[in-house]
Amino acid sequence: MTEPAPIRGLWCATLTPLDQDGGVDHARLAAHARVLLATGVDGVVPFGTTGEGPSFSVAERSEGLNALLASGIAPERLLAASGAAALPDAVALTRHALQSGCPRCLVLPPFFWKGLTDEAVFRYYASLIDTVDDARLRVYLYHIPQISAVPIRPEVVARLSAAYPDIIAGVKDSGGDFEHTAELLKRVPQLSILAGHEPHLPRLMRAGGAGTICGVANLFPDLVAALLKPDVSPDDEARIRSFLDIVLRYPFVPAFKAIRAAQTGDPAWRAPRPPLWPLPEAERATLLAALHRAGFGISSETDP
Amino acid sequence: MTEPAPIRGLWCATLTPLDQDGGVDHARLAAHARVLLATGVDGVVPFGTTGEGPSFSVAERSEGLNALLASGIAPERLLAASGAAALPDAVALTRHALQSGCPRCLVLPPFFWKGLTDEAVFRYYASLIDTVDDARLRVYLYHIPQISAVPIRPEVVARLSAAYPDIIAGVKDSGGDFEHTAELLKRVPQLSILAGHEPHLPRLMRAGGAGTICGVANLFPDLVAALLKPDVSPDDEARIRSFLDIVLRYPFVPAFKAIRAAQTGDPAWRAPRPPLWPLPEAERATLLAALHRAGFGISSETDP
Repeated sequence: MTEPAPIRGLWCATLTPLDQDGGVDHARLAAHARVLLATGVDGVVPFGTTGEGPSFSVAERSEGLNALLASGIAPERLLAASGAAALPDAVALTRHALQSGCPRCLVLPPFFWKGLTDEAVFRYYASLIDTVDDARLRVYLYHIPQISAVPIRPEVVARLSAAYPDIIAGVKDSGGDFEHTAELLKRVPQLSILAGHEPHLPRLMRAGGAGTICGVANLFPDLVAALLKPDVSPDDEARIRSFLDIVLRYPFVPAFKAIRAAQTGDPAWRAPRPPLWPLPEAERATLLAALHRAGFGISSETDP
Repeated sequence: MTEPAPIRGLWCATLTPLDQDGGVDHARLAAHARVLLATGVDGVVPFGTTGEGPSFSVAERSEGLNALLASGIAPERLLAASGAAALPDAVALTRHALQSGCPRCLVLPPFFWKGLTDEAVFRYYASLIDTVDDARLRVYLYHIPQISAVPIRPEVVARLSAAYPDIIAGVKDSGGDFEHTAELLKRVPQLSILAGHEPHLPRLMRAGGAGTICGVANLFPDLVAALLKPDVSPDDEARIRSFLDIVLRYPFVPAFKAIRAAQTGDPAWRAPRPPLWPLPEAERATLLAALHRAGFGISSETDP
């Protein structure tokens, strides 16, 4: 394993396709990742939030990563989401990623307990790093408080980076609050700061950010790639807002999966893992028709 | 396995003692459960919230249940907490409990996703029950929205009870909102309604509730038992409020563990599993001194 490069550019928080029994569909997952990489995505992140990671067992997540590697995807193109509610599960997932040649891990805070202090969050990540005890590990801290309910404050990021300067490599900031992102850019400029909220990307890149790990890249990677370029246009920015205005009226994972099903003509894409459920038929039709009207190249007629 | 009786009376949401390596201390766990049962507790619930359940892996939770059974505790005295963020983990824990002769399971809603609809919560529990597919199963729904962040509304309980009349056996209502509890007593009188918030117990019992699954029973089972009796006195009610007024100034699991350490003279009891941490020394001393002054029989001098 060579020193892993810091993550930069366009990374996709990959959707997880399911087979008829509700298990992870390895063939569709690998094919999807290969399509993304072939169309300009720099890397893929299986089993993040868009990938419904916490809804899958440690074994399912490990086997999913194995399947991506077995399909020929290079470890340098993978960021393994290895956070879990239970520390031993996060340790097992992180160790598995390392053993598989993927030293870069995206790590949620433990998300069962609420009201954790900054000290508790710091010590949790320190415990994980100390327990895994592998100098190759590169941790990307995952801030998504609207879902995890546990924020990772900039003070905690700075303290972790000071304590583990070689291990803490970046932050995926999906909080949607650019003030928080700006504070990270100021406090920890040595880290890769990646935003999850696509409309923030032009501002992030101008301010020295590293790029994005986002869900829209599953569907419209070009739309997101445009936002990372120095010559991003007002039209590009209007376009992503137009897309999100339509899609965020729905639970985003079922909506993204419905769109991927329509794009590929493959209805198997529609199913999320419980406790998420496919969009009801009427909502799905309304979503696809709205995207069609807005020029997103999805026709309700070709929808499977 | 005979038909399991509905849960009634005083059940303890058992603390989980750790060994020096941070693993579950099976010997201390079994000894603690035996002490509780010998002092009048009707049953024990390992790996609930007070037992930090979601902080342990499926294997740790299964082995912990095995250890309690191997120590001679009868399955009738056990309610297995089998909820998890990932459905396959909840299925595995529920199946393990059934295979171990413990058909009664306390099941958290999936706690990663937020803003789930009632329909999504209903279908999640239905999926779990249908997948486990065992007529012996008895599910106790676990409502603790201040921590799980996913409420189980009375409408959902009623719908589940109608769909699975033999399987849905009760609700542990730890929301601390008696209006919610009263609504359950009205809507699903066929179920065992158990409250987690101890001060509500006298009202609950007068209104036809079944009893409690609570954490204070780890420390002062007599205090809680008094609240379940028809002749509960104003003094008993004042006593539990006095205890909670002192202890709830601190994170409750570390506080409970500090108290158990002081009661037993065994400092090993102090450690929680990350992301919870032992009370800082000064806080622990202040807590124990306050309990001593309030007459809770804990002396700072005998504290280990």
